[in-house]
Amino acid sequence: MGEFDLIARYFTRPVRRAVLGVGDDCALLAPTPGMQLAVSSDMLVEGRHFFAGTDARRLGHKALAVNLSDLAACGARPLAFTLALALPAVDAAWLQGFSAGLLALADAHGCELIGGDTTQGPLNICITVFGEVPAGQALLRSGARAGDDLYVSGTLGDARLALEALQGHTTLAPGVLATARQRLEAPTPRVALGQALRGVASSALDVSDGLLGDLGHILRASGVGACIHTTETIKLIAASAHPESAGGHFDTELLHQCTLAGGDDYELAFTAPVAQRAAVAAAAQASATPVTRIGCIEAAPGLRLIDAHGQPMPQRYASFDHFA
Amino acid sequence: MGEFDLIARYFTRPVRRAVLGVGDDCALLAPTPGMQLAVSSDMLVEGRHFFAGTDARRLGHKALAVNLSDLAACGARPLAFTLALALPAVDAAWLQGFSAGLLALADAHGCELIGGDTTQGPLNICITVFGEVPAGQALLRSGARAGDDLYVSGTLGDARLALEALQGHTTLAPGVLATARQRLEAPTPRVALGQALRGVASSALDVSDGLLGDLGHILRASGVGACIHTTETIKLIAASAHPESAGGHFDTELLHQCTLAGGDDYELAFTAPVAQRAAVAAAAQASATPVTRIGCIEAAPGLRLIDAHGQPMPQRYASFDHFA
Repeated sequence: MGEFDLIARYFTRPVRRAVLGVGDDCALLAPTPGMQLAVSSDMLVEGRHFFAGTDARRLGHKALAVNLSDLAACGARPLAFTLALALPAVDAAWLQGFSAGLLALADAHGCELIGGDTTQGPLNICITVFGEVPAGQALLRSGARAGDDLYVSGTLGDARLALEALQGHTTLAPGVLATARQRLEAPTPRVALGQALRGVASSALDVSDGLLGDLGHILRASGVGACIHTTETIKLIAASAHPESAGGHFDTELLHQCTLAGGDDYELAFTAPVAQRAAVAAAAQASATPVTRIGCIEAAPGLRLIDAHGQPMPQRYASFDHFA
Repeated sequence: MGEFDLIARYFTRPVRRAVLGVGDDCALLAPTPGMQLAVSSDMLVEGRHFFAGTDARRLGHKALAVNLSDLAACGARPLAFTLALALPAVDAAWLQGFSAGLLALADAHGCELIGGDTTQGPLNICITVFGEVPAGQALLRSGARAGDDLYVSGTLGDARLALEALQGHTTLAPGVLATARQRLEAPTPRVALGQALRGVASSALDVSDGLLGDLGHILRASGVGACIHTTETIKLIAASAHPESAGGHFDTELLHQCTLAGGDDYELAFTAPVAQRAAVAAAAQASATPVTRIGCIEAAPGLRLIDAHGQPMPQRYASFDHFA
């Protein structure tokens, strides 16, 4: 199978929203008047972002999910994406699974594959995603204000818990591992919540490198600090609620590590004024996405962790850095 | 140097046209009313698209040039791009050169770096570029009609000639190799010509995999055939005009191979009605880009090569395919 057959067979579909899709030098999008275009790129490398041998269907899902998560964090509605793919060799079964997982998630969000590139090389998946947001309404990292509540969507820490188990650093019951692994390999981008939070949240981002590190981006961009109630945060690991987890009795240190600095969560962390609590709850309900208040924004710079007794905890949880 | 320092130091600059650049979950573009957005992605892999050890500055130039070439082929004006970069390790000297070459070309075309991704992995450069074109005026592959003239911009075949020499398949005088290598490593995207051809050309694409193979895309998309005068085509190799080439006495077979099926040219191949000959000449002059008429579009499907005596030649020049 040659390059153009491969594109035709697995990655070419008629477009409905775009003016022109796969098959010319460029794709063409006709922006909606009054909307701004939100753009984000994420690159996934084998051995770095996923294990060699990861299920192709889940990998296709995840490659798009991590990009949709960036649109969600801006409150943008997904429109389209490009896919650039370096493959060691043409493997029809892999391509079938990968494209099925990718396009199923794309369809679920009305996000069209409009173009890209394929080449031979070490497995590398680079997606650039496009969404639209009413002019001036994008959720940014710079809007947090002292006194705002601090929230996180969904669950935290499961992806890291699965990674620790898959790397042999901890042992999990099979059902617990399956729950955690699902979150590692098939994260859920919070696209509906992001859009529901427009005009409600004061700042937002998606948690990809670990809560504390990512939250630092909001704090720096907004010129504020924050206080986090870790007792709320460590409850957010989904796997600890699994029946096989024997009542959720994980090592507390591991729970802190996974939820506060785990990475690969693709949940939204966001802030909103106290006056918006009902609106946040309504956005959570409208998008069928759990939301938990885990702390508050403060004027004093820095991040303060508070334990179950209201006492400050040492901050020793590092965020993920590809080159550190 | 960590991931965020790296981005801040080499790849973060203030944006002027974009609403929001590097540093949030998404970049934001405000499309001009009445314009369509042209989007293209190209991925460059070490050992596949460039030799290990290629000069970083030239590589930065080329990575953006091949993407701008796609905008040129659509007649779009460059606006912005995202850069996703997998690096084996942080090498400050390499990053300095790469970003300098990349951003110099970006500045020359008013094309802003608005976002992207950096990660550790085998060297891989994935750029997605955005341009704008008045609605309905993009140059497509599907507009060629029987009777149209067939043109190509600039020079053809030098990139392949340099590759043949660098791989030891042929020997070139030092000055000739330098001329050819410049075309391989620092191609010139024909951005101004592409825009000048709006409303003039009936179809266009950029020559990246070799003239004949790429022309096949126009022929299939347009449902036509073509005739090419190879005597015109083989003169288009720049290196043969170099004084050290001893009067340009290359092997004729090599000249055919390089110009007809060389690849990496990043010139525009385009068609235009005979009535537009003066307009094509004016577009070439306005954009200071040489343009050569090399054949014509015919109703009968297929590509016919014609030699100096007007006789048909055997068509034995294959285009580049990453997986063939």
